[in-house]
Amino acid sequence: MAVKIFLNEDEIPRQWYNIAADLPGTMNPPLGPDGKPISPDMLAPVFPMNLIEQEMSQERWIDIPEGILDLLYRWRPSPLRRAIYLEQYLQTPAKIFYKDESVSPAGSHKPNTAVAQAWYNKEFGIKKLTTETGAGQWGCALSYACCLLKMECKVFMVRISFDQKPFRKSMMETWGGTCIASPSNETAAGRDILAKYPDTPGSLGIAISEAVEAAVTDTTGQTRYSLGSVLNHVMLHQTIIGLEAKKQLAKAGIKKVDTVIGCAGGGSNFAGIAFPFTLDKINGADIEIIPVEPASCPTLTRGPYIYDHGDVAKMTPMLPMYSLGHDFIPAPIHAGGLRYHGMSPLVSQAVAHGLMAPMAIKQLECYEAAMTFAKTEGMIIAPESSHAVAATIRKALEAKAERKERVILFNLSGHGLMDLAGYSKFMKGELKNAELSQKELDETLERSVKGNPVPAL
Amino acid sequence: MAVKIFLNEDEIPRQWYNIAADLPGTMNPPLGPDGKPISPDMLAPVFPMNLIEQEMSQERWIDIPEGILDLLYRWRPSPLRRAIYLEQYLQTPAKIFYKDESVSPAGSHKPNTAVAQAWYNKEFGIKKLTTETGAGQWGCALSYACCLLKMECKVFMVRISFDQKPFRKSMMETWGGTCIASPSNETAAGRDILAKYPDTPGSLGIAISEAVEAAVTDTTGQTRYSLGSVLNHVMLHQTIIGLEAKKQLAKAGIKKVDTVIGCAGGGSNFAGIAFPFTLDKINGADIEIIPVEPASCPTLTRGPYIYDHGDVAKMTPMLPMYSLGHDFIPAPIHAGGLRYHGMSPLVSQAVAHGLMAPMAIKQLECYEAAMTFAKTEGMIIAPESSHAVAATIRKALEAKAERKERVILFNLSGHGLMDLAGYSKFMKGELKNAELSQKELDETLERSVKGNPVPAL
Repeated sequence: MAVKIFLNEDEIPRQWYNIAADLPGTMNPPLGPDGKPISPDMLAPVFPMNLIEQEMSQERWIDIPEGILDLLYRWRPSPLRRAIYLEQYLQTPAKIFYKDESVSPAGSHKPNTAVAQAWYNKEFGIKKLTTETGAGQWGCALSYACCLLKMECKVFMVRISFDQKPFRKSMMETWGGTCIASPSNETAAGRDILAKYPDTPGSLGIAISEAVEAAVTDTTGQTRYSLGSVLNHVMLHQTIIGLEAKKQLAKAGIKKVDTVIGCAGGGSNFAGIAFPFTLDKINGADIEIIPVEPASCPTLTRGPYIYDHGDVAKMTPMLPMYSLGHDFIPAPIHAGGLRYHGMSPLVSQAVAHGLMAPMAIKQLECYEAAMTFAKTEGMIIAPESSHAVAATIRKALEAKAERKERVILFNLSGHGLMDLAGYSKFMKGELKNAELSQKELDETLERSVKGNPVPAL
Repeated sequence: MAVKIFLNEDEIPRQWYNIAADLPGTMNPPLGPDGKPISPDMLAPVFPMNLIEQEMSQERWIDIPEGILDLLYRWRPSPLRRAIYLEQYLQTPAKIFYKDESVSPAGSHKPNTAVAQAWYNKEFGIKKLTTETGAGQWGCALSYACCLLKMECKVFMVRISFDQKPFRKSMMETWGGTCIASPSNETAAGRDILAKYPDTPGSLGIAISEAVEAAVTDTTGQTRYSLGSVLNHVMLHQTIIGLEAKKQLAKAGIKKVDTVIGCAGGGSNFAGIAFPFTLDKINGADIEIIPVEPASCPTLTRGPYIYDHGDVAKMTPMLPMYSLGHDFIPAPIHAGGLRYHGMSPLVSQAVAHGLMAPMAIKQLECYEAAMTFAKTEGMIIAPESSHAVAATIRKALEAKAERKERVILFNLSGHGLMDLAGYSKFMKGELKNAELSQKELDETLERSVKGNPVPAL
């Protein structure tokens, strides 16, 4: 039977879907240091104007430029797969489909926006991009994109991942990027943190501060910063995942999806698979949409919906989002890409309006799910993606208990071939669960978001 | 433009091509310890009888059992890609296509035969397989196959690769296999070598001895040995690569291929892409067919065509093949999968009859080629595959010099995501070329194959 559903290259979606056009409630703007909405000009030192316009766009469908399609064709459309072996193993009546974003050269969904951002920056005359990376997926993706477009790339990598995944650096370097551990001594933000916490495992929040600083302090004017998640234009670029999935499900004869699942760190792969289906839900369809996060970094399930900075050093504007506090440093779980204190404002707005049903899962259940997936479907997946698989297994077993033939779609955001150290530790029994205690949660919120403005609903 | 040419699942070839039916000259049988042709029964402790029959078959087309097709469907048909970015970079008039075998869960072409062998063994009632692995590709592939078929798997991994690529072990373990460094203390063959050469980097020849010994000394009778290359049935299973490629080239409107290239260690990925085209050559087509080997292990370009053992401890029969001597230990280059002293008898026979034009390339040129490939096509490839890319670049530049629009097809045998240590060393300038000296060659041949029988032509 057909376990892989492909699209031809000419079936690739030619527009991205912008959920900002359809979300219920107020579109809360980012706020500057003075508490007032920031203007596009204020972002100009950080991003090129064409991306700033896209960031603020309310247009529902945005054309994908031919130049970007040419780059996406290199690995897209990505396959949709039916997880028949996992279904058989679980003895579930559920039909499980997954979008396989591991097929990109960088190994994850991240190049979908990396090539788009690099392309827009190049159009704007930019020669160099700086960024941060958690697990390393994004740093690799941007290095890859900059390689294709012949641009420079500098990546600040969260120290714990830098140490756990040394080959990520080699990968970035193979594509011509440079990669340093964050916090580093190269930026004021990095030096401050190192002075306070010399042994810090780092965090995405810190690395973002460093990368933004490195971009805005470059006096040539030809450097900008690129973010791999959180922002509206990043979510936009990722919607190609869900748009392709819709076409593929139709090819497979599936008329209705019941559950859509993605892991959520900053929200980009989740938004990518989920937003096109969220549109259906807004239009009345009965779909359960589940962002899955680690119990050690439970932004959507336990954080408040509040204005907060995207980074530790408060270099970014305040964004309306679920947040655990901009200086929160999550436990060093292996799913480095999910260790972010905040969440995409678009995802946050959708959650705040009840369009989504977030779920938090502990590390060991996720690794169990990853092992089950490897032994049934055969693929070794990223620790981040294992959160989506763990949630999928929960839902598939629920369907079994209820004897309902549900259709579950999840996003397989990346492979785990660079993450085998975590698998090895898990198999040796060396990994533990990490869950945020109420005390830690209270402390971080008191410290970093107390008194911040609350977004309007 | 279309850079990827897919086949639908129902277009997968349903027969393997057995070149033994068509090769010119004598089919020289394997020889036993007494110098006489061995009978099928003598191989029975090592392999299941269904595979032994296949090993000796002279039938041209052999049906692929449905049970094996079901396993192959998990990742096949594999994509054929047009290397337009490499072409543009080289400014060559050549059209370069490559078959992307990196898409299997184990990351290489090896599962093509791993799932077939595991399936035939299971049909025969076998519960456990032992094997060796060089770079780790084969060990991962067989662990994966045994996982799918719920069989046990034990892998002896050449020590230098075991040390260079620690995550290969984790990968095998994720699929339920066990992996130990070879030479090991678990076998008499391993202990002998360790006593003589305690610091040996190991070799495929040693690891094969250990794996065969571990299989034949298992008194339950339910363990057999599985080889990832060299043998006729392995070449047979791999021909699906070239058979698919032919269909895909036809889809792309290509009427004639001028050059077919594959890297060659034991010969399996090379045979896989090359044998279906060799049939055309035997039938009169003008095709150049190039097996590419490392200059440090130049079996086809500098070894004699002679009878030799496949392993150090002489546990295997003598095979008619090009060989550098069964106890030859090649320099520790990073392309561990090409560090084999011998060569598939079928490939050897084809070479001996002038059907192929072997080429040896040094390590640094191969890594240069791999870097060029990463920066143009985007993929980070295995050090083994880089040999095929290096030869492809040579031929593409030749076409440029001659202003000829040649069609070049090569096999991309696997990705290099587990091989980034080598890339890292190359970028730091720490890698050297290694070439076998005439003195070393003379010594190894004198030591291990002098006086051996010479196969008939």
